[in-house]
Amino acid sequence: MFKWRHATISWRGLKISFLTLLLLLACASVALAGDPSGTTTGGINDIAAATAGQPTLAEVAAQVGKNKIGINFVWTLITGFLVFFMQAGFALVETGFTRAKNAAHTMAMNLMVFLVGAIGYYLVGFAFEFGGVGAISALGGTAPLTQELAVNGWGLLGHSAFFLSSGGSYDVGVFTLFLFQMVFMDTAVTIPTGAMAERVKFSAVVIGTFFIAMILYPIFGNWVWGGGWLAQLGSKLGLGHGVVDFAGSGVVHAIGGSAALASALVLGPRLGKYGKDGKINVFPGHDIPMAILGTIILFFGWFGFNPGSTLAGTDLRIAVVAVNTMLAGAVGGFIAMMLMWLIFKKPDPSMMANGTLAGLVAITAPSAFVSALSAVIIGAIAGVLVITSVLFVDRKLKIDDPVGAISVHMINGIWGIIATGIFADGTYGDGLNGVTGTVSGLLYGNPGQFLAQLIDVGVILIWGFGLSFLFFKLLHATWGMRVKPEDEIAGLDIPEMGMLAYPDHLLRTELESE
Amino acid sequence: MFKWRHATISWRGLKISFLTLLLLLACASVALAGDPSGTTTGGINDIAAATAGQPTLAEVAAQVGKNKIGINFVWTLITGFLVFFMQAGFALVETGFTRAKNAAHTMAMNLMVFLVGAIGYYLVGFAFEFGGVGAISALGGTAPLTQELAVNGWGLLGHSAFFLSSGGSYDVGVFTLFLFQMVFMDTAVTIPTGAMAERVKFSAVVIGTFFIAMILYPIFGNWVWGGGWLAQLGSKLGLGHGVVDFAGSGVVHAIGGSAALASALVLGPRLGKYGKDGKINVFPGHDIPMAILGTIILFFGWFGFNPGSTLAGTDLRIAVVAVNTMLAGAVGGFIAMMLMWLIFKKPDPSMMANGTLAGLVAITAPSAFVSALSAVIIGAIAGVLVITSVLFVDRKLKIDDPVGAISVHMINGIWGIIATGIFADGTYGDGLNGVTGTVSGLLYGNPGQFLAQLIDVGVILIWGFGLSFLFFKLLHATWGMRVKPEDEIAGLDIPEMGMLAYPDHLLRTELESE
Amino acid sequence: MFKWRHATISWRGLKISFLTLLLLLACASVALAGDPSGTTTGGINDIAAATAGQPTLAEVAAQVGKNKIGINFVWTLITGFLVFFMQAGFALVETGFTRAKNAAHTMAMNLMVFLVGAIGYYLVGFAFEFGGVGAISALGGTAPLTQELAVNGWGLLGHSAFFLSSGGSYDVGVFTLFLFQMVFMDTAVTIPTGAMAERVKFSAVVIGTFFIAMILYPIFGNWVWGGGWLAQLGSKLGLGHGVVDFAGSGVVHAIGGSAALASALVLGPRLGKYGKDGKINVFPGHDIPMAILGTIILFFGWFGFNPGSTLAGTDLRIAVVAVNTMLAGAVGGFIAMMLMWLIFKKPDPSMMANGTLAGLVAITAPSAFVSALSAVIIGAIAGVLVITSVLFVDRKLKIDDPVGAISVHMINGIWGIIATGIFADGTYGDGLNGVTGTVSGLLYGNPGQFLAQLIDVGVILIWGFGLSFLFFKLLHATWGMRVKPEDEIAGLDIPEMGMLAYPDHLLRTELESE
Repeated sequence: MFKWRHATISWRGLKISFLTLLLLLACASVALAGDPSGTTTGGINDIAAATAGQPTLAEVAAQVGKNKIGINFVWTLITGFLVFFMQAGFALVETGFTRAKNAAHTMAMNLMVFLVGAIGYYLVGFAFEFGGVGAISALGGTAPLTQELAVNGWGLLGHSAFFLSSGGSYDVGVFTLFLFQMVFMDTAVTIPTGAMAERVKFSAVVIGTFFIAMILYPIFGNWVWGGGWLAQLGSKLGLGHGVVDFAGSGVVHAIGGSAALASALVLGPRLGKYGKDGKINVFPGHDIPMAILGTIILFFGWFGFNPGSTLAGTDLRIAVVAVNTMLAGAVGGFIAMMLMWLIFKKPDPSMMANGTLAGLVAITAPSAFVSALSAVIIGAIAGVLVITSVLFVDRKLKIDDPVGAISVHMINGIWGIIATGIFADGTYGDGLNGVTGTVSGLLYGNPGQFLAQLIDVGVILIWGFGLSFLFFKLLHATWGMRVKPEDEIAGLDIPEMGMLAYPDHLLRTELESE
Repeated sequence: MFKWRHATISWRGLKISFLTLLLLLACASVALAGDPSGTTTGGINDIAAATAGQPTLAEVAAQVGKNKIGINFVWTLITGFLVFFMQAGFALVETGFTRAKNAAHTMAMNLMVFLVGAIGYYLVGFAFEFGGVGAISALGGTAPLTQELAVNGWGLLGHSAFFLSSGGSYDVGVFTLFLFQMVFMDTAVTIPTGAMAERVKFSAVVIGTFFIAMILYPIFGNWVWGGGWLAQLGSKLGLGHGVVDFAGSGVVHAIGGSAALASALVLGPRLGKYGKDGKINVFPGHDIPMAILGTIILFFGWFGFNPGSTLAGTDLRIAVVAVNTMLAGAVGGFIAMMLMWLIFKKPDPSMMANGTLAGLVAITAPSAFVSALSAVIIGAIAGVLVITSVLFVDRKLKIDDPVGAISVHMINGIWGIIATGIFADGTYGDGLNGVTGTVSGLLYGNPGQFLAQLIDVGVILIWGFGLSFLFFKLLHATWGMRVKPEDEIAGLDIPEMGMLAYPDHLLRTELESE
Repeated sequence: MFKWRHATISWRGLKISFLTLLLLLACASVALAGDPSGTTTGGINDIAAATAGQPTLAEVAAQVGKNKIGINFVWTLITGFLVFFMQAGFALVETGFTRAKNAAHTMAMNLMVFLVGAIGYYLVGFAFEFGGVGAISALGGTAPLTQELAVNGWGLLGHSAFFLSSGGSYDVGVFTLFLFQMVFMDTAVTIPTGAMAERVKFSAVVIGTFFIAMILYPIFGNWVWGGGWLAQLGSKLGLGHGVVDFAGSGVVHAIGGSAALASALVLGPRLGKYGKDGKINVFPGHDIPMAILGTIILFFGWFGFNPGSTLAGTDLRIAVVAVNTMLAGAVGGFIAMMLMWLIFKKPDPSMMANGTLAGLVAITAPSAFVSALSAVIIGAIAGVLVITSVLFVDRKLKIDDPVGAISVHMINGIWGIIATGIFADGTYGDGLNGVTGTVSGLLYGNPGQFLAQLIDVGVILIWGFGLSFLFFKLLHATWGMRVKPEDEIAGLDIPEMGMLAYPDHLLRTELESE
């Protein structure tokens, strides 16, 4: 890059540049009519109702309330944007960990699930999940959406705010909630694509995404976050605060991971993955830097996912949530790396990535309720769990999950729910789910909370895995979920998408097949 | 990756790890001298002037005003940073959708336009665009920049705040405005690079970028956003609120897209694109995952672009803007995907991406003024328009636009301006451009607003396309805009940039040419 | 992509779609029970203590203080998240600028340093750096961590808040500070990996990262940011405000860059880099788009790095910091590009990237204290410096630094510290380090400040370079830092990581070696 033959010119050029710069410097005298320090900007005259700088207490108080809600909107929206960006992370992790011949297909699935999921959630998903929720005070709380199907007072699902047009839902607080919840649902729908990659029909994923976005996810979400029956286990049966799942280890990850397990079971393994002689073949991911970039993006987005779930920047517990998230992710990745190094003699990059994600999934539910040290312990156990689970699913169960979605999201999602019931330390959560007092777990003397969490796990297995297994079975039997074997062998990009991912690059597989 | 031979060691290792973790747990007793819940942090003593916790009403009110402006600064800056990040999105989309032999050139152009654009906008662009603007109340409004060239009271361009040093512009409010507007300009300059890719001289793009950043963009921006004559059509002629373009479907996208059209026309098609026999060749993009990653990043950045354009986090309409943005983008991509699937039998990933971007461009102007359902309609029409336009430009007009910049940005930018004049529902915009009352469109009984929007479209065609066409014609005739044919065939990376994008990878083209 | 044969169907399909959309439109009447404009949301009833809308002044004031701290938390956390995301930028720049055969190794190193660094900083690093710091008023300031080792009143290091569990450190303000500082440390540990790339043992980097995160970085950080002896040079010896390093040109970049220099010296050059005949070989980076993407991500993250360092969104100077950062980065890249073009006849993409980063590093320390014009000058000089330094290090010193980490971070970090002592214009920094009055540099008549900055540079050379050189020498002599020559030639991915970065792609090197 650096050719030395022009060296003489070079040094002269450099000197001239220096001199020019010093001359520029001479004109650096700056007029100061503005407010460069910011000390005089912003003050009594910026209160909406202030006239001549003499606002009344009521006028000041009105602006204070507006500011508070403004802070909460800013926080919830920006963290929601970060969660949206996780789409890029999932796309890169899934595409990087699969093969080049399917890269356009895998990548396009990850964009598509957002497009389809947003529409499904807009049409009915949000209404089912939050249509029965009262006004959320952190978001101003002016628009109660309170139409709830219930049996004996146990909430089942909402039916308000369909396509954000009914029931007073054209409201800034409702729209903020919608944006934040939409990107959460979106995370759930993108999890199964990893487990189905490299053999699934694109059209089947479109249909499956509508199912998850409109039915599977929002109805379960209603039960935990929408004031439904699982949230009521505390106020009605005295089981702690009912099911507590701060940012969705269960609602998002275990549900998405359960659908991943169901879809992988129904689809069956990729051709050649499990030999007839019992040989288990490894299909290495085609772009490790891509997968690691995706992991870092997911980590970045998780700082929206967990801390944003307060829906309030004025709830200062966000600091604890953010730090716990960071620590559990780091420890999960570190422990997984060290274990792989110990066992297989190499610090496997793919398990560094999956260990990190496992730690993040596990801390998602407990992040607001536990201490930093507990976050470290939860993350460490996640790092161990993900390796154990990946090996068990692949070697013993022989379920083909190309990117480890089941182990990362379902297993560690369940671990996160249980961990909340163990480690919650009684420093946060006063009034959650209508129960007075803070949230405590088993170690802090509250077996009721632990029991509520176990019930949540059971319901996830039945609803999340059971229903999606039925659905995918039906889909497979009617529409068909799997591409033709010759397309799978050649790669899905041309037959399914009509274009290659990397048409200019020579692939090893092509050369071999020629 | 997982070698089973060490299985025995493995399970023992796992067990030891578990035990270690349980021991760690024992020391989990945590001192509680701090404030873990955040309930006592932040209070009366945090008011700047408070002494001994007894602030006066005036002191409290001063802090309230400071808080309000602080929220607005935080919101405007962070959303501005998101808009900056769109540079990465444009770079990836344009590079992914072009060929590997030009990838270093295309990518470097996208970095360069930011470097050059920032300097040009700093020197004169910002002064031309906003030098005539009075204090912006959302940003504290202490530094009025009010030097405006005008004819008969119709504003033409500002002349204050040159290189942020003149006229009291060393001011925190002005700097916030500069940052946000700079990244908007930056979006406009990066649009034409996609249309010029794979055949344009790097040096010509440097010159063209200075032109757009210093002249084309800021002067038009002044007319709409800087209080210029298009913004005055309402207050002076009674045409609604004058031209309304919330976040720049017109100012940014249609202007940038017009320059893209002009430059593509002047440059002519890539060699071999249109055969002498009328055959239209397709040059597939070399990296589809890269282009889809870029699309997701652009979507992410758009959450800064549109909602940030309130310049105020205390303007709670940001929630509606954000949701409308999300819905229009999702629907645009979905409709484009379904249409391609219907027509050409494959859910084309490149049109999924372009449909998504088209929906985002189209909602940019109306995002603050319309309902969610209107956003869905606007996005759906954008999805149809982008396909129609891409086919029309490529097949009928035979203008070679490698990435679809004309269809995405110019056509849908114009659609966005018109859509604002149709769908604005009268729920927002009181006082905009000095006109009392909210903004309504044709469907809500306001033909004057619709007319103002049509005038805007006409001016974009004349100024945006006309002036840039003249400029590029002149540039081509004097400096020359196109590389040598042999360089174009070999790829621009070595002759123009001095390095290959992928020196270690074998490309199909190289093998074929050997 | 677009096959024209179905054109008839196509146009009909388009028409049907349009009609469907127009029908949809008919149902666009929207109920308005909510608050779509956001004007009534947020108000007097949102004050925590308000009962029946009649809060007292004390209740209002309490909420005002809570809002202020909330704004500061939101700002500090979100900008901290942006800094975290710089990990992705570093990973891509370093991997893009090195060879494909080491890409999994280089990328995995960049993930690993975060995992390891977070743990090391959690265990002791944070305690050493900030364990002696009093309550930070911008973050509520309820939890003073004040245990400081000192000699004659000169602070040396803190010893509080070990693993965030001791000394009242379970506190929202402390956790916010931890998160922000952790990602800064993380930037420092990732700098040397670029200088060590393509020949270093992964295990050696793990150990080195613990050393930097636990010892090298936090102790120096304590001296400048933790109230230590370098910060006290002003209050005790009258040298301006003592060492002033707003966001860490010195603490982060020059320290990280010094460790990079030390590690590159100890490791020696890559095999074949410097021929026995004096020939200097160039190893081109394997993925230029990846490196440029990384550069843009780093720029994006820098908007967190510098403006976030106020720890307060209510400190409106954040606007000046953000604009200065943008300008210096843009000018640094532009000047480097133009110089390369002038000297070597091509606008070298890799020096565009490094020039941009050099400008960003250089403005990091002065960003809060200088005018926009000074930022431009500082950035321009950085652009010249980085080219001079890269050529000097490579050609004269023959130190092999694959990505230019020494020139970008150490040289321009030092330039940033000095520039603060020259250009600080007296508009900001009142009370910093306990010194009354704003910060001024040499050009504004304050040689004492300039002297303090020079002392800082001296200490960086002794502590940053000296100590890390000793450490790496010891590490190399005992554990060994360098891979086997045959592994280096074959590429580090298989022997070190157990997997190829791009197993499906054909690499030129492989074909040549077959």
